[in-house]
Amino acid sequence: MKTLQVELGERSYPIYIGPGLLDDVQRLGKHIQGRQVLIVSNETVAPLYVESVKAALPQGLQVTDVTLPDGEQHKTLAVLEKIFDAALAENHNRSTTILALGGGVVGDMAGFAAASYQRGVNFIQLPTTLLAQVDSSVGGKTAVNHPLGKNMIGAFYQPQAVLIDTNVLTTLPPREYAAGLAEVIKYGLICDADFYQWLRTRRDALKSRDPKTLSEAIERSCAAKAQVVAADEREGGIRAILNLGHTFGHAIEAQQGYGNWLHGEAVAAGMVLAARLSAERGDITAGEVDALVEWLEYQNLPVAPPPDMTVEQWLAHMARDKKVIDGRLRLVLLRAIGDACVVDDVSTAALEAFLAPFCAC
Amino acid sequence: MKTLQVELGERSYPIYIGPGLLDDVQRLGKHIQGRQVLIVSNETVAPLYVESVKAALPQGLQVTDVTLPDGEQHKTLAVLEKIFDAALAENHNRSTTILALGGGVVGDMAGFAAASYQRGVNFIQLPTTLLAQVDSSVGGKTAVNHPLGKNMIGAFYQPQAVLIDTNVLTTLPPREYAAGLAEVIKYGLICDADFYQWLRTRRDALKSRDPKTLSEAIERSCAAKAQVVAADEREGGIRAILNLGHTFGHAIEAQQGYGNWLHGEAVAAGMVLAARLSAERGDITAGEVDALVEWLEYQNLPVAPPPDMTVEQWLAHMARDKKVIDGRLRLVLLRAIGDACVVDDVSTAALEAFLAPFCAC
Repeated sequence: MKTLQVELGERSYPIYIGPGLLDDVQRLGKHIQGRQVLIVSNETVAPLYVESVKAALPQGLQVTDVTLPDGEQHKTLAVLEKIFDAALAENHNRSTTILALGGGVVGDMAGFAAASYQRGVNFIQLPTTLLAQVDSSVGGKTAVNHPLGKNMIGAFYQPQAVLIDTNVLTTLPPREYAAGLAEVIKYGLICDADFYQWLRTRRDALKSRDPKTLSEAIERSCAAKAQVVAADEREGGIRAILNLGHTFGHAIEAQQGYGNWLHGEAVAAGMVLAARLSAERGDITAGEVDALVEWLEYQNLPVAPPPDMTVEQWLAHMARDKKVIDGRLRLVLLRAIGDACVVDDVSTAALEAFLAPFCAC
Repeated sequence: MKTLQVELGERSYPIYIGPGLLDDVQRLGKHIQGRQVLIVSNETVAPLYVESVKAALPQGLQVTDVTLPDGEQHKTLAVLEKIFDAALAENHNRSTTILALGGGVVGDMAGFAAASYQRGVNFIQLPTTLLAQVDSSVGGKTAVNHPLGKNMIGAFYQPQAVLIDTNVLTTLPPREYAAGLAEVIKYGLICDADFYQWLRTRRDALKSRDPKTLSEAIERSCAAKAQVVAADEREGGIRAILNLGHTFGHAIEAQQGYGNWLHGEAVAAGMVLAARLSAERGDITAGEVDALVEWLEYQNLPVAPPPDMTVEQWLAHMARDKKVIDGRLRLVLLRAIGDACVVDDVSTAALEAFLAPFCAC
């Protein structure tokens, strides 16, 4: 087992990475403070893991579990309320601990529920998808979607611990797995050219889910994220680079209807757009873009946006991006492979011209 | 105009108290940072003040206003969503400022919306009821209700400033005004015996809304609250004393249906119960309880709970109180007039015996 630390002063917490952590009684018990536990999972995850997590909890706790519907389309305020219903029906108080057992949607919702329930209770992330393990479970971003924009309602709220059980990846559906790889590759692109090359040369091992390669990839991804988050918890600056591909990706997700494209798939297509725009600006080469596209395709990820989106739809979604400041859009682009930056000098006209070739008329 | 400061390190902010602040262009403009403003008010307040607040805003801002239904029964997640709808429909971004223009319900909802919209935007409290001016607008508690409990979903989230325009009190409906006085009297009871006596000797001036008396009462109330909040922002300890009468009061509000009893009315009846229990424990005298009851009645406040509540209903609501820790109820009681404390040694049996005389069988 490996342990990383997210350094955030009094909000610091450990990330544990290793096989079998969902059954690790000691590890889980160490981070539960009160006498109540609320396990939040979804219809897919609950039958697989809820019982074993319950068995791994210390004796004598009051345990409640709540099962949410599965999918990004259910990441709403209305479904969030089900968590509060369950907690209040069983008299969970401010000393309860919420366990987020599932992928990114469960983690984001359980985390926001923990931030808001009685104005804040403890929570622990138990991510069961690759995407949640390398990205959404670390760093304290929690949220639900709004029909007009992804993750628009939420909180920065850090967990007490993240337990990443690498065993769960063996049974992850292929689309979910590929979607997670998109975020892994993102870390190489934004801040670590060595990691990017390391991953590329292990594309076969990644595709076949080789445990050793995967474990190291997860560890390096979490370390990269922990470092960025420690430097800028509330995204005043540098943290925005973690959003490479996300401004385009969120537009795809919102326009296609949440849940039709997986988040990681939309990010993959979004990263390709960001790379293409970076190449147009002369910061990376066309060859580097082609190599990225070819590699993402090899990992079974989409490399172009859905062809039925209009320029107007793109612009409307992007205008609501959380990185907009006083009407000015900010985009995460690449200065080089392994070096992302935030730019605010792409005019609407330039963006229209860039997007037009990918759009329905 | 008087200025107080809530000392919370980087989250410190001023409270301004004086006549005409809702029209004070300079004061308001000073605390608005971005180029967008979202005014949240309700059906009652909007016709009275929204236009004058708009006129007092700096030129050149994008201003959106959203009007909520009036009343505690609308302090729900579903109504909260209307604020997000309005903000997103007009592309408000992370640099927007939310103005909470109204009483406690508007302030709590606009504040929680500010805490959650895009994971946190600026907000300013413009309280238009006495209760909001002396209590809910100060200290950063924001929330919505759940059918099973008051203020169960929310955040600790501080405003950038609180502007208390004392002119608005002249037109406040009598019930609303009296409800606010309950919270004013609370400050005397919990932490300032001098203030308590000062208020008692000015009961006529309070009843007739004498501006000078009121202004000083508001200032001393805000100063008391600011001091307690500065000492314990997230209610790890001492802040709980601000909840005198609230455990009983919240039970009344939830059981009677939100909006039937005003919050301040329920707190008044709750404070009497807390005082009676304190007297039973020998900490204050029966004479002190009688004097409090007589005074609250003089200010047109209820001094007993609704007679139709059963002991079971009381206990069920109180078991969900946010001050419960691991199943153990904590109550705010009086060691003396002007000196509140938190106790956790009242057994369920003792509480049942205490409540029985006030209950339907």
